[in-house]
Amino acid sequence: MPRDDRDARRRLLDAGLTLLLEQGYHGVGVQSVLDAAGAPKGSFYHHFADKEEFALQVIDAYMAGVHEALDLSLSDAERPPLDRVRGFFEIVVTGYESEGYLGCLLGGLGQELSGESPVFAEKIEWCLGYIAGRLAEVLDIARAEGDLPSETDTAALATLLVNGWEGAALRSRLLRSAVPLQQMLTFAFTAAVTCPPTGAART
Amino acid sequence: MPRDDRDARRRLLDAGLTLLLEQGYHGVGVQSVLDAAGAPKGSFYHHFADKEEFALQVIDAYMAGVHEALDLSLSDAERPPLDRVRGFFEIVVTGYESEGYLGCLLGGLGQELSGESPVFAEKIEWCLGYIAGRLAEVLDIARAEGDLPSETDTAALATLLVNGWEGAALRSRLLRSAVPLQQMLTFAFTAAVTCPPTGAART
Repeated sequence: MPRDDRDARRRLLDAGLTLLLEQGYHGVGVQSVLDAAGAPKGSFYHHFADKEEFALQVIDAYMAGVHEALDLSLSDAERPPLDRVRGFFEIVVTGYESEGYLGCLLGGLGQELSGESPVFAEKIEWCLGYIAGRLAEVLDIARAEGDLPSETDTAALATLLVNGWEGAALRSRLLRSAVPLQQMLTFAFTAAVTCPPTGAART
Repeated sequence: MPRDDRDARRRLLDAGLTLLLEQGYHGVGVQSVLDAAGAPKGSFYHHFADKEEFALQVIDAYMAGVHEALDLSLSDAERPPLDRVRGFFEIVVTGYESEGYLGCLLGGLGQELSGESPVFAEKIEWCLGYIAGRLAEVLDIARAEGDLPSETDTAALATLLVNGWEGAALRSRLLRSAVPLQQMLTFAFTAAVTCPPTGAART
């Protein structure tokens, strides 16, 4: 792809991320994406088949940032493993802060679209499952090092962290505040070491 | 209001609840509400000033069901207070099941609309805060009876339960499953008695 094309595509995706986070899928029209990106009419359908494909690619762009945050936080072998996991969420809080606490794009689009779109439901479920999987790998290290009880079901714990986070992110969006996020982290990480989910508790 | 009018209004609100839960605010048009309610054209604007007022009244109708569930579960003095609180969520699960696990209308509309609508953000924040307040009253009883540690910040715990629930409800919607809801309840209620939030932990 020529460089100008790549730049235009990138600008459209960046604009889409901001607009979808603020206004949701149905609230955003193609024209407002073009306006925000300063892109000429016609360039949208040059890069994307339709609005659905565009939104799916915005999710991929969002996930690229999530991958970066996961890599940055989880690979820091100097830090205790549980600190690395919490560090991931702390990076995400910083991102939310820079956006004015609009919450999580995955939670937002997941709520809005998964009632009628299996495509978005599966995509977003995959993203959340992927994040939990990455966190579970480091929770395994924590368990092996004795920082989590030996009976901890690390996959279940990672899922609980991700889901709890999504609820806190909704409340953060409603209140435009970091407080629900920090309260969730403190509660969940204290509970993780004190009374983690175990395989026996799986339903 | 004449009885026929009340019935028509009720049918529109019932249809709105189902449609908003499934398709979200922007996904639902006035005509589809009229079609689903079997109501004549014109009856919508006889009862509601506009779609926003309609959706706000759907939220009120949804909250009427929440009030019923709160009253039913929390007033049962025969049960230990923590069981009453958990009982509220169990009633809600039953409701989600009957709808095919589409999650929580408050979380859905909160995610979709609170980025650009202070009216919906305030309304939904009020609803979630109200639910937490009702739960906190019974958590106070649990603490007084020694079922929760004496240092428990019951208001913070109630908020954590409500927020954690909203995250689990999103995942339940994505997966069309009760599992995330039950896992959240087990984790949170175990943590509540083992390592509850305390006033000192408030941020």
